[in-house]
Amino acid sequence: MQYNKSSDSVGITETKYFTIQDKILLESNEQFGPVTVAYETYGTLNDTKDNAILLLHALTGDAHAAGYHAEDDKKPGWWDDMVGPGKAFDTNKYFVISSNMLGGCSGTTGPCSINPETQKPYALDFPVITIEDAVKVQKKLVDYLGVKKLVVAGGSMGGMQALEWSIAHSDMVSDVIIIASTSRLTAQGIAFNAVGRNAILSDPYFNNGNYYGQEKQPERGLAIARMIGHITYLCEESMHNKFGRRFQDSDKPNFDFNIDFQVESYLEHQGRVFVDRFDANSYLYITKAVDYFDLSKKHGSLKNAFEKTNARFLVMSFTTDWLFPTAQSKEIVQALIKAGRDVSFCEIESPCGHDAFLLEFETQTKIVKSFLAKSRGQHND
Amino acid sequence: MQYNKSSDSVGITETKYFTIQDKILLESNEQFGPVTVAYETYGTLNDTKDNAILLLHALTGDAHAAGYHAEDDKKPGWWDDMVGPGKAFDTNKYFVISSNMLGGCSGTTGPCSINPETQKPYALDFPVITIEDAVKVQKKLVDYLGVKKLVVAGGSMGGMQALEWSIAHSDMVSDVIIIASTSRLTAQGIAFNAVGRNAILSDPYFNNGNYYGQEKQPERGLAIARMIGHITYLCEESMHNKFGRRFQDSDKPNFDFNIDFQVESYLEHQGRVFVDRFDANSYLYITKAVDYFDLSKKHGSLKNAFEKTNARFLVMSFTTDWLFPTAQSKEIVQALIKAGRDVSFCEIESPCGHDAFLLEFETQTKIVKSFLAKSRGQHND
Repeated sequence: MQYNKSSDSVGITETKYFTIQDKILLESNEQFGPVTVAYETYGTLNDTKDNAILLLHALTGDAHAAGYHAEDDKKPGWWDDMVGPGKAFDTNKYFVISSNMLGGCSGTTGPCSINPETQKPYALDFPVITIEDAVKVQKKLVDYLGVKKLVVAGGSMGGMQALEWSIAHSDMVSDVIIIASTSRLTAQGIAFNAVGRNAILSDPYFNNGNYYGQEKQPERGLAIARMIGHITYLCEESMHNKFGRRFQDSDKPNFDFNIDFQVESYLEHQGRVFVDRFDANSYLYITKAVDYFDLSKKHGSLKNAFEKTNARFLVMSFTTDWLFPTAQSKEIVQALIKAGRDVSFCEIESPCGHDAFLLEFETQTKIVKSFLAKSRGQHND
Repeated sequence: MQYNKSSDSVGITETKYFTIQDKILLESNEQFGPVTVAYETYGTLNDTKDNAILLLHALTGDAHAAGYHAEDDKKPGWWDDMVGPGKAFDTNKYFVISSNMLGGCSGTTGPCSINPETQKPYALDFPVITIEDAVKVQKKLVDYLGVKKLVVAGGSMGGMQALEWSIAHSDMVSDVIIIASTSRLTAQGIAFNAVGRNAILSDPYFNNGNYYGQEKQPERGLAIARMIGHITYLCEESMHNKFGRRFQDSDKPNFDFNIDFQVESYLEHQGRVFVDRFDANSYLYITKAVDYFDLSKKHGSLKNAFEKTNARFLVMSFTTDWLFPTAQSKEIVQALIKAGRDVSFCEIESPCGHDAFLLEFETQTKIVKSFLAKSRGQHND
């Protein structure tokens, strides 16, 4: 697929950068800065500055949510099917913002960025950050862009950030869209992240995080972390549909330890391509931020947390998502109801597992459009 | 817990060894031998040689199923609660046999054994083996012991071997007990094994399998494989009950990449103790054998496979086992029914996940005793 000149594409887009010079007080009590934020915007901010939608990306996403960076780009942004003229996040109506998360490796300051004090990459001198810290940085960006009111929307880790936005900046957030997300990871979720981090930390080329510019990088560790991730993003059903028990090259087993089954080939491929686009240290930092996120613990209870919000909520989950299953979305919904908040909930039938939030566009589009049409905060003419 | 002198223990036991001098024709068409088998027996074979029970261990088990190897042993065999006088596998009535699987590292010939042709460990020159091959070796042992009729029983991978026994040696097998098992892994199951193997193969000290006698061993790779395994042996509920989101040392996060949550500490511990007792090459070979096992593919259908059996079947699953979920046991049961076989099925309510077959003794004991009491093959006086 090449650059789509069709009328529902945002077309050629550009990642821009904004630097916060003041230090930010992190959850760890460390003062950290300056922070540069990589971001993209689509559509136009209206005169009353209240037609913004902030998109929050998942674990390994970036600022490039929609459109193409060049005419010969093979792939559009990660949520291109959801963002554009007439789409779920309609750029004819809304000013859509997407930024790379703090600690990331796609333009926003993270462990691979140069520490101005040493002129070397931060590596593990980068502070451990939280979802709350990421939201603090996003708030500075949104203020810089002049936004007064906004919708926040995200899937998976993006949903955690959207929840945090709704609580920390309740005066600004009119509507919240949470997809395939949770208010806190289970022990099993932490366990999967921990094993992924272990694979990176155990890689002989990790070198205590100081691998930048070295001949060898902790590529296998990062690839293994990614493979574990991919198992959790799919589900038994989607893996069965995609690969079954089919062998890669013939109808017979290899009888060796090379790639044998198609599912092995898929995981190997996902691991290999991931190391070209993602930084191992960022993987450590961002999974840790996800592990730490716990609204109930921070606010006493989920109900207490949501009593601090002023927004309407749309919560969506997917039938085959076993990473952030429907029960976790329902927990959010029930706490919102207890807190007396306006909440819509939909469990979408999908065979795609957790990945469904990146794939099931048609249903998501209908639900998001219908939800946003009833927004109090924006112009919907 | 020390050596249990109570009347229901088999007491002090000893691992014995039997060597098959003739070469065995493996599924890969390779001729392989000699093979030494490590085994233990409990109870006495009767005059009609028809009161034997062969226990088949799971992925990382060994021949030491019951009793203690020394008076000061801290831990008994892996299924001690199930094997002994008056227990589920009653050694007052039965001659119970347990052997270490071909390719293992606990006495039976495997990749860490000395290749008589080179006088060095086989390492990756060991042939890739299958569940069928393991059963061929067990058959030689059972013949050597003089057994004419037997019950076969196993959990997880042990259940696969029990299924294979019931088909390959239908004339000898009177009763089959399959617990938390499957007739073939799903793509997801293969994926988990593949990532574990990847962690081992990527370890810098793996050295193409030739790490025996080296200063450094592929310990981190094997530990990571084990951690992934442990996530699949527990379940969300059991992890929540054991660890929740509790931190290891205090109520606060570390804000670093050391062990933070209790679940991380558990996984790290499981990884560390595993490398002391298990060989990385054996992990590769045995997981591969598990991946290859596929009764439907081999026999055309599961019904076809079971039409070759002459035994009674007991199939048990656990409500929270998501590695080999109840649906996979039901698939076996339905095929047995279609094949006109005598089958009992029970899904046991348990919060323990896949590990339940090693933990839920009371219920399993009741069901197994009741099943064996109706056996046609053995004396039950």
